[in-house]
Amino acid sequence: MKTPVTVLGLGAMGTALARAFLTAGHPTTVWNRTPGRSPELDTLGAVRAASPTEAVAASPLVVVCLLVDATVGSTLDGLDLSGKAVVNLTNGTPAQARGTGERVAAAGAEYLDGGIMAVPAMIGGPAAFVFYSGSPVAFERHSADLAAVGRPEYVGGDAGLAALHDIALLSAMYGMFGGAQHALALVGSEKIPASRFTEDFLLPWVTAMLGSLPRIAKELDEGPEPGAAGSNLAMQAAAYENLIDTSVAQGIDPGLLVPMGELLRQAVGTGHGDEDLAALVPLLRRSV
Amino acid sequence: MKTPVTVLGLGAMGTALARAFLTAGHPTTVWNRTPGRSPELDTLGAVRAASPTEAVAASPLVVVCLLVDATVGSTLDGLDLSGKAVVNLTNGTPAQARGTGERVAAAGAEYLDGGIMAVPAMIGGPAAFVFYSGSPVAFERHSADLAAVGRPEYVGGDAGLAALHDIALLSAMYGMFGGAQHALALVGSEKIPASRFTEDFLLPWVTAMLGSLPRIAKELDEGPEPGAAGSNLAMQAAAYENLIDTSVAQGIDPGLLVPMGELLRQAVGTGHGDEDLAALVPLLRRSV
Repeated sequence: MKTPVTVLGLGAMGTALARAFLTAGHPTTVWNRTPGRSPELDTLGAVRAASPTEAVAASPLVVVCLLVDATVGSTLDGLDLSGKAVVNLTNGTPAQARGTGERVAAAGAEYLDGGIMAVPAMIGGPAAFVFYSGSPVAFERHSADLAAVGRPEYVGGDAGLAALHDIALLSAMYGMFGGAQHALALVGSEKIPASRFTEDFLLPWVTAMLGSLPRIAKELDEGPEPGAAGSNLAMQAAAYENLIDTSVAQGIDPGLLVPMGELLRQAVGTGHGDEDLAALVPLLRRSV
Repeated sequence: MKTPVTVLGLGAMGTALARAFLTAGHPTTVWNRTPGRSPELDTLGAVRAASPTEAVAASPLVVVCLLVDATVGSTLDGLDLSGKAVVNLTNGTPAQARGTGERVAAAGAEYLDGGIMAVPAMIGGPAAFVFYSGSPVAFERHSADLAAVGRPEYVGGDAGLAALHDIALLSAMYGMFGGAQHALALVGSEKIPASRFTEDFLLPWVTAMLGSLPRIAKELDEGPEPGAAGSNLAMQAAAYENLIDTSVAQGIDPGLLVPMGELLRQAVGTGHGDEDLAALVPLLRRSV
């Protein structure tokens, strides 16, 4: 028999997780604060628990996916978790993950925190993956079970590291989307069709530019390679003015572009004008 | 014989352009305000002109690549350009391109403005491409010659459109780099090696997320497709707080992330909470 799993929380993501466990053949017990949520799970064989206590008692593997971190604490508080593996997939920060990890460990359970890199519709599919951090024992014991929802990627014993990886990738995603949205607004200001521009130019260009990330990363790890610099920051800072001026002239809010311009100017002003984009990363570290 | 070409300006980019024309077998005349620049061009057979007048007289195709737009005007002013095709590859805004186009046309030449999508080292190589806009006559006549420096992409008769496309792609690139740099700063705050994170997670993730741009573009062209929304903006705006909070907690300046958070909140506040990322693009249009 496959490992019985309990899922606490049946929002869109919790429901998708429960469905994936059921589809993979795990006896699955579900609980949600509002009863009767996601009736489609009943036809897949989900067992409904009347309380968190009952839900947690049903399975060695307890997956938590609630709306916000505050609810995780109030739901788990006072439950007997001894011998359980608690896997918290609720969206949160590294600090929240560490806090929950301490409370869960104090209640006798092994704790894993997770960051789901997928929307609910992708859960159980080939493109979904999930960062996990925390108890290596729990990961060793349950990674095959957790693979039912997405490829598991263990990133370390510190419970906060999954959320950190998750948030780092979301930052990168929003940067990319913000740049693309600004680009689409600019060409839209001259009635250029977005689809054609995206297929012909935007996608190939951004894909090509992604190719310089490994070099930037290597430079961060190992220091600058002499003579390897592309376009230096002083030239880029000067040319960047054209991006702002053109946006304003086309009636497009330059707001999404402004902080990068400030960062380029700061880099030039602090003596990094002849370096390249890798030099911007350390500037993001705040002096404490 | 291949079309004789004149290159005005021998900065890093102008030198690369002259080298590419020479390598492709074009008789190439060069001029630079400071004489003797880029001596390597002499061994390739470049002819040095003593003045812009002499340089322009040497070829039917005149390529201009100066440091800034202001120098373009002062260099071309008063020259006899009748019958020439003038191709301006100096970095600039659409408004500057239109201004130069009018002056050049008044001096009797066909005008093309260009936006080079490459760094100097890429010129003449397979990955370089150049946006052109302006005179269709000049493009028809010289696109095969211009292919020596990079794949020519003609985007319309309005001389400003090449710069607009160029600046739109640069905006997208800086958005992507900004997001990636923030991500690298975040993982760097926990001493996670940048190269491993980039290869294992950052590149595959951003590449996968690029896959949603065609859907966003289609929605901009044709309106929202019912039921196709991914994660709605209200949920994204709430989760975005974690990105800011975590950055601050890790000692990383959240500045690059702030405008996207404001845009998400603005979208929710103006009734777009149940839409998806495509709804942000029209919000960038400023009410005039």
